[in-house]
Amino acid sequence: MSEITVGAYLLRRLREMDIEHVFGVPGDYNLGFLDQVVACPGLEWVGTCNELDAGYAADGYGRLRGAAAVVTTFGVGELSAVNAIAGSYAESVPVLAITGMPATAVATAGTPVHHTLMDGEYDHFGRMFAEVTVARATLTAQNAPAEIDRVLNALRRHRKPVHLNLPTDVVLARVPEPAAPLAAADAPTDPALLGAFRDAAARLLAGARTVTVLAGHEADRHGLRAQLAELLAAAPVRAAVYSTGKGLVDEGAPGFAGVYTGEFSAKPARMAVEDADCLILTGAPVTDTVTGGFTHHFPAGRTIELRPGRATVRGAEFAGVTMTDALATLTALVRELRLPEPAGHGTLPAPTAAPVAGPDRGAVDGPLTQDALWAAVGAFLPPAGVLVAEQGTAFFGAQELPLPRDARFVGQPMWGSIGYTLPATLGTQLAAPDRRSVLVIGDGSLQLTAQELGTLARYGLSPVVVVINNDGYTVERAIHGATAPYNDIAAWDYTALPAVFGAGDRCVTRRVTTPAELTDAFRLATDTPDRLVLIEAVLPRDDAPELLTALAGRFAEQNDYGN
Amino acid sequence: MSEITVGAYLLRRLREMDIEHVFGVPGDYNLGFLDQVVACPGLEWVGTCNELDAGYAADGYGRLRGAAAVVTTFGVGELSAVNAIAGSYAESVPVLAITGMPATAVATAGTPVHHTLMDGEYDHFGRMFAEVTVARATLTAQNAPAEIDRVLNALRRHRKPVHLNLPTDVVLARVPEPAAPLAAADAPTDPALLGAFRDAAARLLAGARTVTVLAGHEADRHGLRAQLAELLAAAPVRAAVYSTGKGLVDEGAPGFAGVYTGEFSAKPARMAVEDADCLILTGAPVTDTVTGGFTHHFPAGRTIELRPGRATVRGAEFAGVTMTDALATLTALVRELRLPEPAGHGTLPAPTAAPVAGPDRGAVDGPLTQDALWAAVGAFLPPAGVLVAEQGTAFFGAQELPLPRDARFVGQPMWGSIGYTLPATLGTQLAAPDRRSVLVIGDGSLQLTAQELGTLARYGLSPVVVVINNDGYTVERAIHGATAPYNDIAAWDYTALPAVFGAGDRCVTRRVTTPAELTDAFRLATDTPDRLVLIEAVLPRDDAPELLTALAGRFAEQNDYGN
Repeated sequence: MSEITVGAYLLRRLREMDIEHVFGVPGDYNLGFLDQVVACPGLEWVGTCNELDAGYAADGYGRLRGAAAVVTTFGVGELSAVNAIAGSYAESVPVLAITGMPATAVATAGTPVHHTLMDGEYDHFGRMFAEVTVARATLTAQNAPAEIDRVLNALRRHRKPVHLNLPTDVVLARVPEPAAPLAAADAPTDPALLGAFRDAAARLLAGARTVTVLAGHEADRHGLRAQLAELLAAAPVRAAVYSTGKGLVDEGAPGFAGVYTGEFSAKPARMAVEDADCLILTGAPVTDTVTGGFTHHFPAGRTIELRPGRATVRGAEFAGVTMTDALATLTALVRELRLPEPAGHGTLPAPTAAPVAGPDRGAVDGPLTQDALWAAVGAFLPPAGVLVAEQGTAFFGAQELPLPRDARFVGQPMWGSIGYTLPATLGTQLAAPDRRSVLVIGDGSLQLTAQELGTLARYGLSPVVVVINNDGYTVERAIHGATAPYNDIAAWDYTALPAVFGAGDRCVTRRVTTPAELTDAFRLATDTPDRLVLIEAVLPRDDAPELLTALAGRFAEQNDYGN
Repeated sequence: MSEITVGAYLLRRLREMDIEHVFGVPGDYNLGFLDQVVACPGLEWVGTCNELDAGYAADGYGRLRGAAAVVTTFGVGELSAVNAIAGSYAESVPVLAITGMPATAVATAGTPVHHTLMDGEYDHFGRMFAEVTVARATLTAQNAPAEIDRVLNALRRHRKPVHLNLPTDVVLARVPEPAAPLAAADAPTDPALLGAFRDAAARLLAGARTVTVLAGHEADRHGLRAQLAELLAAAPVRAAVYSTGKGLVDEGAPGFAGVYTGEFSAKPARMAVEDADCLILTGAPVTDTVTGGFTHHFPAGRTIELRPGRATVRGAEFAGVTMTDALATLTALVRELRLPEPAGHGTLPAPTAAPVAGPDRGAVDGPLTQDALWAAVGAFLPPAGVLVAEQGTAFFGAQELPLPRDARFVGQPMWGSIGYTLPATLGTQLAAPDRRSVLVIGDGSLQLTAQELGTLARYGLSPVVVVINNDGYTVERAIHGATAPYNDIAAWDYTALPAVFGAGDRCVTRRVTTPAELTDAFRLATDTPDRLVLIEAVLPRDDAPELLTALAGRFAEQNDYGN
């Protein structure tokens, strides 16, 4: 059998997983591996300004590509990125974190070299990564093929991050070429088990006149978009999504009931979810931000829940049923059952009940408002666009916006790390070059990671970045400390940023203060599809989307500030 | 006994430790505590653009103040900062990391709220911090006073970081006021033990004609500067420092032999260290960067080593001897022993043997070089200035620069996290407002954390920031990949940065390409002591300080790239 280097073995596996870009920052323990990355056909190295941003970019990439990789150096690099990896864990994004590690002999001897804690212990950071990954390994010349495959299979099965330590000397060690591609991520469900699940589901569905699917982020990460569409086409099933599942289901389809956020939902989504005879929760775990702070009401004794690797019917668990097989089974069932067209189906109130202004309102004079902003974003969003919304006013505003059929939505409501979306947009735009990414981000958030505007330009990317300038952390003001100094930030000159970061004529910028100016700026964006476009939208300091204002009160209560 | 809140108790302890500034980023789990910070007399809240930068700023502050505090929110915030905390651990800087945590009841119930991993487990991040801190606690209304004191005592004894989780509901819980201030950090050494150490040291010193102290960073962190000066004044003892101890000893004193870096040292330092009859290693652990990649040669059987909490004489350990007591003992000993004026003492070659250009050379025309840059920095550095040098070309260049007597030096050669120094300068300038901080940082490093230029201006600070623009990661190019694309970075407009970050007229900037222009720029800096000054120094891409070039080869070898 012919041999290749460990580095080449790993890169071949990445290419099998459809990875074409590797994110990261060089450091002296990863330079040898980076030589292989830049030399590998079909792979591009994407250097970001810092490692956290590389991790965020990989997360954005992984959401659209199904897998991503980030390379850092030992200690300083990997720990800078670990918050991004934790976010990928919390939100189930498959990211491989590769750490360039000191040479095996150096580590084995416990030599106190730079980027260690100087205590001779080389597994501190690996243990830290173990808290936020589903598998990890330190590669050696002997274990590399088996460990790489084991760790990558864990990533593909769980759709969560994994970690590999790659010592400098192991990169060029020679190992046998892979004999076969990586096996399928999920084994098919045992037929007897699936049959038992089917029987239980059939009993619940048999008496149901209304069936609703509530989809969350795990349905997206496990690739169920097409299957969900098939289920909705098979019978008059209604669909709602959590904010984390936005974009999973065609929002123009007759059965689409909107975004469900517990008591904070618009009426169609509440009715569809809470009054269903059978509710099928699909990759939709209950967490605070997606349920309006646990104000959800699911129909008691009438739910089917699909989660990775298990399903439950009326609380009875079928461990080992994959979401794919469960969904296919349910699709066949509802088709056979010939569900009645439910009373009121098609006559529900329009799914987006929140007051979103139409394009006409966007042309009105006067200062820009959140309502007018989102109306204009909605009017602009390309059919196959990727809407990326920063946690903060942007995310909550985006919830109320109807998405075009083929659009995608990226946000991080559960981990909620501010600054995430700008580097994530680097990832989404590289992952899906034919879809224009449209980022909406607040000024406070942008300041965490702004330098990646330069990276977007450096790699010739053309997303549209809307910076909401509302003079500080409006989302925090809404929760607590409306006028507190800690919610103030420096007043940046946002439209000057790209030029300072070296974007040159790869970027056009506009500062807008009225709806008409914003509409003009989006027109400019449409006319310059090959440039990075930055629009600074000046909004009143405390103008927050309605949904945020309502939810903020609920979170302040949960935090029990005592005042 | 009267009562105060847990938050107030903690802040009172911080004030006792001479902390006047608290760094961090607001998040909904720390807002209640931030209310108390901003209301606390004698404390100022310093909000940075992101949490990693807050951690770096706290590290810089802690180096000059002896203690520092950083406040982040749960998960997203604390993990963003954890690389800075690890750096503080590796380099022994006393930083208290405070994490605003979800309310006790929420955590106890394992509720899946935002900023958690959604698995009901609330100790993931605490365990990660345990790897890089010497003590940690999750506060409750019951344990708060005892746990706060225990954790802060660990910080003061070990001069390393510690971690406190502060749940939102505990902030306002009432506890008894502290009955007394925190106890002294170190108990005095047991007299019998100290006597035994003294006897062993006396036997070694008795036959010694030449005695040299080699001081490292732990001597600085444990506050031994004045004691070292006393030792050097007590007898004709020579002094050398590791790069980590630069600035600890008056570099103009006759016994000063320079920076010791193993085989890469200039001759006076090598002779002083390697040929001494007795070498007193003071807070100077052996690590790769400070010893030129372990090329040090200590006189066998003739060393006394002082480390935190223990001393050794000829390898025999005296566990429990504090550095303070050991140094006082040695000072008394050398005074009594009346060491001879060593042959050659005072006639050693000048301590700085490396070719540093004089101020005259700095005025010569032609392109700027590393030599000319450091000559000009040396000519400019204020007597009580703080020279902050980024790991990279800047740190190695700074090694060869003689420091004014009362100057301080800050670098991070062991942890070596690029981007550290700009936020660290925020910390040093706030910690020592009467000392002007002068930062020298490369372009690649600046891009990681550049936004804190805006924070420096926002808080009215006036350091001098010299950005070496040499078109990429020159330090990495020196080690490996001289022309590799991964060592390229975006071409920023550095002098435009402060204005874009809102500095307005709080900042002046200059771009210089010749020694004469650099001299002019430093003159401008002298003339504007009340402004932030940014100087972009354009240098050839591969012009690295000699010391770096030499060391880079050694590190490439250690990494075993196999080519």
